[in-house]
Amino acid sequence: MNNAVNSINDMDYFFHPDGVAVIGATGTRMKGGYYILRNVMGGYGGRIYPVNAKYDEIMGMRCYPDVEAIPENFDLAIFFIPAQFLPETIKKCAKKKVRGIIIESAGFSETGPAGKKLQEESVALARSLGIRLWGPNCMGLLDGHSRNVFSFMYEENWKTLMQPGNVSLIVQSGMLSAGFLMMMLDRGGMGISKVASIGNKCDVHETELLEYFINDENTGVIGCYLESVMDGRKFMNLARNTSKPIVVLKAGRSPQGARAAMSHTASLSGSAKIYEGAFKQAGIVQVYDIYELMDFIRGFSTIESCPERGGAAVITFSGGAGIITADLLSDRGLPLAEVSPGTLAEIKKVFPEWMDPAHPLDLWPAVEKNGLARVYTHSIEALMKDPSVDMIIMESFSSSYRSPDFMEQIGLLKKQYGKPVFLWLVSPGSRETFTTYRAAAEKNGIPEFTEISRIVALINGIKYHYRKKRALKLIP
Amino acid sequence: MNNAVNSINDMDYFFHPDGVAVIGATGTRMKGGYYILRNVMGGYGGRIYPVNAKYDEIMGMRCYPDVEAIPENFDLAIFFIPAQFLPETIKKCAKKKVRGIIIESAGFSETGPAGKKLQEESVALARSLGIRLWGPNCMGLLDGHSRNVFSFMYEENWKTLMQPGNVSLIVQSGMLSAGFLMMMLDRGGMGISKVASIGNKCDVHETELLEYFINDENTGVIGCYLESVMDGRKFMNLARNTSKPIVVLKAGRSPQGARAAMSHTASLSGSAKIYEGAFKQAGIVQVYDIYELMDFIRGFSTIESCPERGGAAVITFSGGAGIITADLLSDRGLPLAEVSPGTLAEIKKVFPEWMDPAHPLDLWPAVEKNGLARVYTHSIEALMKDPSVDMIIMESFSSSYRSPDFMEQIGLLKKQYGKPVFLWLVSPGSRETFTTYRAAAEKNGIPEFTEISRIVALINGIKYHYRKKRALKLIP
Repeated sequence: MNNAVNSINDMDYFFHPDGVAVIGATGTRMKGGYYILRNVMGGYGGRIYPVNAKYDEIMGMRCYPDVEAIPENFDLAIFFIPAQFLPETIKKCAKKKVRGIIIESAGFSETGPAGKKLQEESVALARSLGIRLWGPNCMGLLDGHSRNVFSFMYEENWKTLMQPGNVSLIVQSGMLSAGFLMMMLDRGGMGISKVASIGNKCDVHETELLEYFINDENTGVIGCYLESVMDGRKFMNLARNTSKPIVVLKAGRSPQGARAAMSHTASLSGSAKIYEGAFKQAGIVQVYDIYELMDFIRGFSTIESCPERGGAAVITFSGGAGIITADLLSDRGLPLAEVSPGTLAEIKKVFPEWMDPAHPLDLWPAVEKNGLARVYTHSIEALMKDPSVDMIIMESFSSSYRSPDFMEQIGLLKKQYGKPVFLWLVSPGSRETFTTYRAAAEKNGIPEFTEISRIVALINGIKYHYRKKRALKLIP
Repeated sequence: MNNAVNSINDMDYFFHPDGVAVIGATGTRMKGGYYILRNVMGGYGGRIYPVNAKYDEIMGMRCYPDVEAIPENFDLAIFFIPAQFLPETIKKCAKKKVRGIIIESAGFSETGPAGKKLQEESVALARSLGIRLWGPNCMGLLDGHSRNVFSFMYEENWKTLMQPGNVSLIVQSGMLSAGFLMMMLDRGGMGISKVASIGNKCDVHETELLEYFINDENTGVIGCYLESVMDGRKFMNLARNTSKPIVVLKAGRSPQGARAAMSHTASLSGSAKIYEGAFKQAGIVQVYDIYELMDFIRGFSTIESCPERGGAAVITFSGGAGIITADLLSDRGLPLAEVSPGTLAEIKKVFPEWMDPAHPLDLWPAVEKNGLARVYTHSIEALMKDPSVDMIIMESFSSSYRSPDFMEQIGLLKKQYGKPVFLWLVSPGSRETFTTYRAAAEKNGIPEFTEISRIVALINGIKYHYRKKRALKLIP
């Protein structure tokens, strides 16, 4: 695969085009062409052209029988009709000065030799006409700031759920990104800059998008699901030379996974060992499961800084939780903070007479005596001041009897001392109470996780990132 | 620590006593003694005696100033007053022919030398009077079948959430079991036989309870959270010689975890390597995190049999999900099933013309053509018949547009062919839809998980269990 011939700035017309045609738009629910049009209408503020010979009008908009029937030129076409019509569509788009086509249909190289031939011929044709192709076999893209959603996502609640933010994603799969993206938006806790689902990536590929996202001022963290990497040397160089965290889930690591990847997006997934080594050299954080990817970028998106002098402080409301946390940290070679006697003496002030604090801190007896808010904020402030503490793992529980308002103070302490706080939230009560607590924490920059092993894995990734980027003098 | 002097049948009076006193009962909300009494009243059908000198009556029941004021003898006392009053309480209980005391207060060996001395003296005193002590520093116990709940659990929704079932738990921690147990009940998907929270286990310990649960006909799966093991040789022998799956989370595996365990329940947690080897020899499934423990016992509770001739079949609605699954299986040395050409030809019947099925199966294009229910049941039936398939991993998504009724048919196929099915459920829609799908699956014996890596870890545990128990000829 050749490098992109165009400059990276050309990616902009995919995300912010001047005019969009939806080829295969339909008024029939449950069809992809219905949702694509609905989604475009739901956010995009420019000219929209539904294209489908069967309709004169869809959802109150004029519908065109054909691309050529569109009266003006426009930048972007979204293609969602059977694969075989792609070449003639490219030719018609060229007449309308179209700059890019997002092909969301399947039926190309992932289906066998005939589809592969169709895909290759389409790329050659588009190149000769100066049109970039995105996909095929993909979910398209979305932008959290402009709210441009050029995708067949079936659920429309992105309209209420999608918040602008600093997370960008590159996903080499269609449905994977659609379903999980909706779960991610529903989950909350992170804002979106851009999501790019690139499918078979016949032309536009991850390395171009990585460069675009590194240069995108709205993007602070980049997550990737990749089955292969085009122009790997450039990808690794870009990753190595940015201070932005890059988290990659590389699929097709095993022979049986690689065989599956061949039949999926027809990607040669390469050797797992080679990738692992290259990622390490480039300072890329590697993950192995989908939620792990989501949780890592959500976690990274809240971290402004992280010292590396000491270890993790752990506060819980059960001794058992502290022991498990200590074990899991140890499994990854991460030390507990050596909390000083002075810090423990300060924390003792909120403890009952009969119990002396020891690290990991079991705060439950203190909470029974002095309440959740006072004990947690007092203890966290004492730990923040201790130079042996790099970050704080805070186990807490949601309770309808107690307010989560103290999260605001903990969020302020996190900012003031520049030390991350991770919330391990246990929810013995109702889902609503849990959601209220989680929202209160995340509003104040404290990411919440259900499983402590995920927090420990994330801390490992964060420590790795800061160590690597500090060694390269990319961050202070 | 000596072995228990009494026979295992004596454990019964803890779970099904003839008369219970709640020492430290109170009518004040937010106090443990309030919840203990409420919980006892909420399930237990026998005589209940609140004890507290401050009240004549609590919640409409006569309250006694003192154990000696109780007019009849009774089996069980629940102790929830300050630690220092334990010795005199033991003496008074002896006069009422009490057989066991559950000590839910803290303030014993976990607090230092004075508490340790108090605990040891109390044990010696109780032994001399023929009373068994449970705890201290624990959450007590519950029984899913009789609905006896002798615990300070703060949330009372166990009354609606707790279903009788085959899962029993031994937990060496107080709050850990309370908070997580409520989450587990709220999560659903498994029924409870018995839960024993044993805290400092000054007298009653895990090895006695393991024997009791192995002999308990309601118990099919046993999960343990342990910081140490009393009478380890017997524990391992019991585990080795039962066909019931035993899943253990051993905390204090690392030096920093072991130090924390010392200050928690004052347990000597021993060497991680020695435990790991002993668990392997005994056919115990070891896990490392709390939800992992919960998910494993939930998963095991649904498995009636599992063949070992072939590998796992994987069906998804996205190629990427299949590749990640193949990789994660490979990481643990678990093969994909070698699905036969005949099986694929059968599955092709529900696929669109342009796509041939390949394993792992991406069913999305088929679902678009023929609907979720038809495609999933047809494909799963074909896979069940294939001798290379030991079990099926089924990725699916919840949708308000589609009914989850087809789970019933998949549940029947699971039973008919004796091959487990694991559901990896992605929820792009509402929480309610997700919950409906999950409930439909679990009602039909198909456990649901959010993360594929957890399913793969569980399959590894299940394969290990069946291999081990078959080698010992404990199961056919």
